[in-house]
Amino acid sequence: MSRFSESQDPLFQALNSSISFDFRLAPYDLEQSIAHARMLARSGIITGDDLEAIERGLEEVRAEVEGDRFEILPADEDVHMAIERRLTEIVGEPGARLHTARSRNDQVATDVAMLVRAHSLQAKDLLARLMGTIVELAERHLDWPMPGYTHLQRAQPVYLSHHLMAYFWKFRRDLQRFNFCLNATEDLPLGAGALAGVNYDTSRMFVAQELGFGGISENSIDAVSNRDFVLDYLSAAATCATHMSQLGAEIVTWSSEEFGFCEVADRFASGSSLMPQKKNPDAAELLRAKAPRVAGRLATLHGVLHGLPLTYNKDLQEDKEQLFDAVDTVELCLSVAIEMLAGIAFNRSRLAAAAADELPAATDVADLLVRRGVPFRTAHGTVAGLVRAALEQGKQLSELTEAELAELAPKLRDDSAAAEGAFQAFYEVLKKDSWLESKVSSGGTSLPRVRDQLAVARHLLEDLSDRT
Amino acid sequence: MSRFSESQDPLFQALNSSISFDFRLAPYDLEQSIAHARMLARSGIITGDDLEAIERGLEEVRAEVEGDRFEILPADEDVHMAIERRLTEIVGEPGARLHTARSRNDQVATDVAMLVRAHSLQAKDLLARLMGTIVELAERHLDWPMPGYTHLQRAQPVYLSHHLMAYFWKFRRDLQRFNFCLNATEDLPLGAGALAGVNYDTSRMFVAQELGFGGISENSIDAVSNRDFVLDYLSAAATCATHMSQLGAEIVTWSSEEFGFCEVADRFASGSSLMPQKKNPDAAELLRAKAPRVAGRLATLHGVLHGLPLTYNKDLQEDKEQLFDAVDTVELCLSVAIEMLAGIAFNRSRLAAAAADELPAATDVADLLVRRGVPFRTAHGTVAGLVRAALEQGKQLSELTEAELAELAPKLRDDSAAAEGAFQAFYEVLKKDSWLESKVSSGGTSLPRVRDQLAVARHLLEDLSDRT
Amino acid sequence: MSRFSESQDPLFQALNSSISFDFRLAPYDLEQSIAHARMLARSGIITGDDLEAIERGLEEVRAEVEGDRFEILPADEDVHMAIERRLTEIVGEPGARLHTARSRNDQVATDVAMLVRAHSLQAKDLLARLMGTIVELAERHLDWPMPGYTHLQRAQPVYLSHHLMAYFWKFRRDLQRFNFCLNATEDLPLGAGALAGVNYDTSRMFVAQELGFGGISENSIDAVSNRDFVLDYLSAAATCATHMSQLGAEIVTWSSEEFGFCEVADRFASGSSLMPQKKNPDAAELLRAKAPRVAGRLATLHGVLHGLPLTYNKDLQEDKEQLFDAVDTVELCLSVAIEMLAGIAFNRSRLAAAAADELPAATDVADLLVRRGVPFRTAHGTVAGLVRAALEQGKQLSELTEAELAELAPKLRDDSAAAEGAFQAFYEVLKKDSWLESKVSSGGTSLPRVRDQLAVARHLLEDLSDRT
Amino acid sequence: MSRFSESQDPLFQALNSSISFDFRLAPYDLEQSIAHARMLARSGIITGDDLEAIERGLEEVRAEVEGDRFEILPADEDVHMAIERRLTEIVGEPGARLHTARSRNDQVATDVAMLVRAHSLQAKDLLARLMGTIVELAERHLDWPMPGYTHLQRAQPVYLSHHLMAYFWKFRRDLQRFNFCLNATEDLPLGAGALAGVNYDTSRMFVAQELGFGGISENSIDAVSNRDFVLDYLSAAATCATHMSQLGAEIVTWSSEEFGFCEVADRFASGSSLMPQKKNPDAAELLRAKAPRVAGRLATLHGVLHGLPLTYNKDLQEDKEQLFDAVDTVELCLSVAIEMLAGIAFNRSRLAAAAADELPAATDVADLLVRRGVPFRTAHGTVAGLVRAALEQGKQLSELTEAELAELAPKLRDDSAAAEGAFQAFYEVLKKDSWLESKVSSGGTSLPRVRDQLAVARHLLEDLSDRT
Repeated sequence: MSRFSESQDPLFQALNSSISFDFRLAPYDLEQSIAHARMLARSGIITGDDLEAIERGLEEVRAEVEGDRFEILPADEDVHMAIERRLTEIVGEPGARLHTARSRNDQVATDVAMLVRAHSLQAKDLLARLMGTIVELAERHLDWPMPGYTHLQRAQPVYLSHHLMAYFWKFRRDLQRFNFCLNATEDLPLGAGALAGVNYDTSRMFVAQELGFGGISENSIDAVSNRDFVLDYLSAAATCATHMSQLGAEIVTWSSEEFGFCEVADRFASGSSLMPQKKNPDAAELLRAKAPRVAGRLATLHGVLHGLPLTYNKDLQEDKEQLFDAVDTVELCLSVAIEMLAGIAFNRSRLAAAAADELPAATDVADLLVRRGVPFRTAHGTVAGLVRAALEQGKQLSELTEAELAELAPKLRDDSAAAEGAFQAFYEVLKKDSWLESKVSSGGTSLPRVRDQLAVARHLLEDLSDRT
Repeated sequence: MSRFSESQDPLFQALNSSISFDFRLAPYDLEQSIAHARMLARSGIITGDDLEAIERGLEEVRAEVEGDRFEILPADEDVHMAIERRLTEIVGEPGARLHTARSRNDQVATDVAMLVRAHSLQAKDLLARLMGTIVELAERHLDWPMPGYTHLQRAQPVYLSHHLMAYFWKFRRDLQRFNFCLNATEDLPLGAGALAGVNYDTSRMFVAQELGFGGISENSIDAVSNRDFVLDYLSAAATCATHMSQLGAEIVTWSSEEFGFCEVADRFASGSSLMPQKKNPDAAELLRAKAPRVAGRLATLHGVLHGLPLTYNKDLQEDKEQLFDAVDTVELCLSVAIEMLAGIAFNRSRLAAAAADELPAATDVADLLVRRGVPFRTAHGTVAGLVRAALEQGKQLSELTEAELAELAPKLRDDSAAAEGAFQAFYEVLKKDSWLESKVSSGGTSLPRVRDQLAVARHLLEDLSDRT
Repeated sequence: MSRFSESQDPLFQALNSSISFDFRLAPYDLEQSIAHARMLARSGIITGDDLEAIERGLEEVRAEVEGDRFEILPADEDVHMAIERRLTEIVGEPGARLHTARSRNDQVATDVAMLVRAHSLQAKDLLARLMGTIVELAERHLDWPMPGYTHLQRAQPVYLSHHLMAYFWKFRRDLQRFNFCLNATEDLPLGAGALAGVNYDTSRMFVAQELGFGGISENSIDAVSNRDFVLDYLSAAATCATHMSQLGAEIVTWSSEEFGFCEVADRFASGSSLMPQKKNPDAAELLRAKAPRVAGRLATLHGVLHGLPLTYNKDLQEDKEQLFDAVDTVELCLSVAIEMLAGIAFNRSRLAAAAADELPAATDVADLLVRRGVPFRTAHGTVAGLVRAALEQGKQLSELTEAELAELAPKLRDDSAAAEGAFQAFYEVLKKDSWLESKVSSGGTSLPRVRDQLAVARHLLEDLSDRT
Repeated sequence: MSRFSESQDPLFQALNSSISFDFRLAPYDLEQSIAHARMLARSGIITGDDLEAIERGLEEVRAEVEGDRFEILPADEDVHMAIERRLTEIVGEPGARLHTARSRNDQVATDVAMLVRAHSLQAKDLLARLMGTIVELAERHLDWPMPGYTHLQRAQPVYLSHHLMAYFWKFRRDLQRFNFCLNATEDLPLGAGALAGVNYDTSRMFVAQELGFGGISENSIDAVSNRDFVLDYLSAAATCATHMSQLGAEIVTWSSEEFGFCEVADRFASGSSLMPQKKNPDAAELLRAKAPRVAGRLATLHGVLHGLPLTYNKDLQEDKEQLFDAVDTVELCLSVAIEMLAGIAFNRSRLAAAAADELPAATDVADLLVRRGVPFRTAHGTVAGLVRAALEQGKQLSELTEAELAELAPKLRDDSAAAEGAFQAFYEVLKKDSWLESKVSSGGTSLPRVRDQLAVARHLLEDLSDRT
């Protein structure tokens, strides 16, 4: 019996009702209710018979939910009311005792925290699989030269393995962000009641342990108003989606006829309704396209929380659709990224041809001068002059004659050299392998360093799988 | 027969398929196809028999869609393919001729533009209704004094009608924004083909007229890459939702026991699962909460389009869910705002009591000094001194004695006054009615000016309804 | 004399003071104050002598501002206080009368509206210049074939002029959006006072006319709380910046060695500190990079306004930095885009080579079948088979033999053909010029249509320059 | 000597140059360069004499920067070039050797990571101070009753201390987020070169240790393209700013005449230019207003990074202004929050009067029924009937007669009660203290639980100060 004299307006119900999307919380709500009921019985707030009835009833509800047989009634405003209503239909009066010592406010915060925990673990698993895929891909393309780019201009040659492994480390940081979400959901909200705590000396730690939380929230007002963990998840998801958008964008570019570096498997591409010859890297495009969606969900929740007074306000209902959409988007994109990468075909000759451009070795020519005592900035200026001379004549750098070198860059002359081989070292440095293997610094692209990197990566992955 | 040797991966299909959300475009797609088929027949590209078959088939499809009998098959990637597939099942070969001289790229742009047009008109209608509700509400509360606030501090008394009418003008500007969306969808994209135009000298103007467009896009590449009109709709929707959030937030504040200015009807409120005495203005809270969601959809689409090369890219598929969600949110919120406002009850005595605070008249005391030749800034300083003296003694301004006035503000003494009535004008100005009625400037809160305003508003509303 | 007993905390001042950024409003504030003073004098609220003093003083202040000699004092909280303080120093008591019948609330709304008007006009001018540059560029590259892309895959050949002109129409819509901003700032806020109107029957229309407004705001509460016009400007700016980001991204891609379609002038590029051979299209990258910044400013202001009660709240101070940054960003980017495009060099042979790919003509082969009565979908399937056969053998389509054609696509056989020329029409359609010139539909890429388009564009530009 | 034949266009320079904002990195750049030079010397890449000259020169530059005497020249494109240019002016050729074995790409990533580290620590310090202020404030107002709100409706009474402490835990989570930023900047980027590593076997760990990094980045491509740590900082800042916006919004509401719960100190408030009586809580309003700004900066950077190919692109330059603005905003807001809270005055009697409303005790009446075996939902319905009866008669709950109770809620009758005291327990439960002290669950508002909470909080704060 409500204290209201009017029934709700259908427009209001359409705006207010959340069951169309929050029914997704049902598994968490059921698990929570079972733990809550056990605590009530242990604390002597309900009887053992009540507990038995409630557990039996909730298991029956769970079976209905899992079997897709749960019937939602028009009056079921949200998942919590729907489950309690059904429970009471099944077991009668004991069902109506379940809501003792809790409120929808702490109940929904707990459900959402449980979902965030579960899907943070899921994201970590998917990321670990994606990282494993990248390592394998890198190992298969260990010594394939390709151009490294800055400003989308060829800059310095690298190995494809090295380029691919850059993503490994980005995704590893994403994994750490989802790990942070586990910390952010460490404290159980349940037991905070509507906002002030409850009238019973309940054992919140018991419930926490039953549900896999590490502790309990220290302040009931904070507990019911806190949605930080949703922000944390959305932030981790947005950064992860941004990384995938970069990966997707590169694959789109590399799949163009002009680059021709790779081709996604047919099962991850689509054709055109009008142009039969087309093979479009749709999956890669969608990886690129989804990041703003996830970032938009994060922006929305920041917006909703902005200036919101404590404690519970209906505005908080807006957290769920943003969260669910981000969860679905990120998990689907990660799954697609794993499979798409596993099946991608790289074109060794196109990559190598692009890497054969001599200009990227200009840096190494400058370094040759530096080793001979020329200050870096002076060396840089000298080599810029060589580049300009080569471009103006449509030559490669190695096609510059000794006479030209002698005029433009006398310091390049080998000290101890005879007349014929006076610029030996210059020509040597322009040979492709030497460029790549000269990058010997830690984290650099030379093969020994890439092998070191892969070893560290393999070790990290083993650590991750040991822990799970 | 596809040129691909592998079938699509289910993960890819889950990411790539849009039919789960774009089936909503079906009515527009059907209308468009009928107009397109008629043009094809007029241009001699298909026969009259083909047209007859196609029209018959599309009407049958429409009946299935409207009757919720249309069966989506797993292979139906999007609404366009689904409808064409079904059409061909029904009418055979003529159905397969329908896609001549168009592509999914111009087809989907056209469908979305049609939807934006339809829902811009719908938003305009709802806004006009909301504006009408506000005018009626203002007329019913024409001369109810209440405090006007700045910084949520009582500043100057106004009439409730005047405060409510502020929203009228905000929503009127929103109506103008949705009007701009009609301009933004004035040019028909259809006929642009995949990107370059089509091989037939089609009559695009004929199709435009059939579908209610005012003209045709001048550049086929622009036509298939253009989603500006979706941005325009989302921008109008975001600003409109922001206005509703301000209205909602004020109602939430005014519904608090502390303000007590209004009470929403029971049919737009909800109770508490734990606290039976509660009456929560949920609808107003949700009006407040929804604005970041719409703004987030706008941000998402700006993000998706950022840096996107011409012409069609799969990324553009992300426009639809953002748009549909904004349409649904704004239309539902407008509908709720109309009904909630119509049923809201204001508390005249609480409003009047709050407006009776004398301090807001301080400005008028300063103006009294200004009329006597005191420069505004000096007058302001003098009155600040009076306010401080009154606050320190816990008095109203009108309780300051003539002796105090003589000391703190000698200029307030009436020039021609006898000894007894020396500060008559000061005490006069502090009477409530005089405050309100002194705001005689155009657009001010005095009753004659509010009546002027209401007359202008009524006139605008009549204009709007004349046009539709 | 303030009523406060404590002076402001320096931390508070750092947060509260706006003069570090709002001093930019000084020219508008001065213009507004002169108009306001004239109205006060006309209405008999101040004397002619006061007006003379105020005008003289304000002109002196303007000279100080323009000469960069205006000294801001620590106590000047904002531009309005600073100017009034300085005015009063110069002319004494009349200066202190200026603030009669207005408030900072309507004053600042007016300044900002004036700035939005001025910079909307500026944006329109820049856009018209950019559109002019594009037309000239298109005319210079009228018949240069290049590939048209969907999904960054070559789809159908187009003329470079046609591709460039796609941007013309996008920027024209941006111009219309900035035009809408002029409507959105049509009504003068000044005269609304703090929120309720003022105690004088002021002539607001006189002020409006002096300042170039078309009318006056009808509701004083709306007038001081309205920042819609800032949202409108930011929205127009965000969409315009998004278009520039697409242009920038295409130039970045086209500048890669792999595409090689264009090269920006040296004066719009930069080198590398380490790699002397690099020429980076930084300007194009920054056009791409700036869109999220402008969209972020829009999102911020939506956020600030979310749930904000009427009328003036300090939160509104956050509008200015967002607006100013967007103004600067968009105007600088437009200026750079104009100059960068004017100096860009396209590579005809690289474009033509990329357009020579035969596969894009597949659509036309399908259309050939359609003309012979094959339903479009069937034709599409047949041609997909040809494409597959060609790709598998590493052939161009035109290298398929008549025997292969006879097997895979018998309908391609010319009806009336002798034995030798049985597939004449097929081979004909694969010649490059025919592809391009076949796109005869309105808005298509065939030369006559592009010329039509350019004529319309020229006409639009003349209209624009006539009006200014 | 550049390879370019044209000098840069001034418009391009205006867009491209970053020194107007990145000069702020100077202290980090100097520190980094000193460490880098030491490493070069240790590795034998430069001589001891060179190192001595470089260190001396850099110290001189530092003195110029700190003394605000550093002169930026028009040709100084960014802070890195400016410092190196000045260094070389001072020490000659050794200065030109400094840039050996690094690039601007790894250099700028390192500077920004150093700044993020420094300001994450700064944010942690400020948060610890804010948390300390809240604990003190809570201790001073330990047992002051006030209403707890849901939906801005009075729900259940709480102690002011308990409400304030809710913010303690929110800010503590923010502190953990800034801690995560320290992890996110654990790996030194320097040594990655332009993208591929450098030609020297440099000792990156030595540099890491000099600069306080815990390790080195494992992949040079990742190192120069990684801006995750900026996203992490912006995300932490956005959530922290959102918490401050909630605190600010509550203070604004509580400062209204209608609530009258608190008054900020004069030194954190401002007056009105027109209304001398006003005292506006501007600082609180600005705390509320700043959150969307910070969230907007985060959204911008997500946008900039969206779809960006590896490795360095000019777009990355957009990270800095977003970051710097967020740093300044959050640090200023935290500083203001600390001081504003320290000086806020609460009004005990207004709070208590608001808390005296009996309706919030309705939950406890329901719990009384539950303890007597009535299922919670049934009890809830019964009490809703009592509330309705009381509201209809304009009574408090405790003014309901025994006859009314007997009719509406017979189960409330005390079992063992004599005729006179039949509803003793009911009336008992409506006494104010009993409401508050009944909330005995962990984290609840009863005094013993708040004291527990304060003890935990004190302990946490000690831990924090021990560590620093």
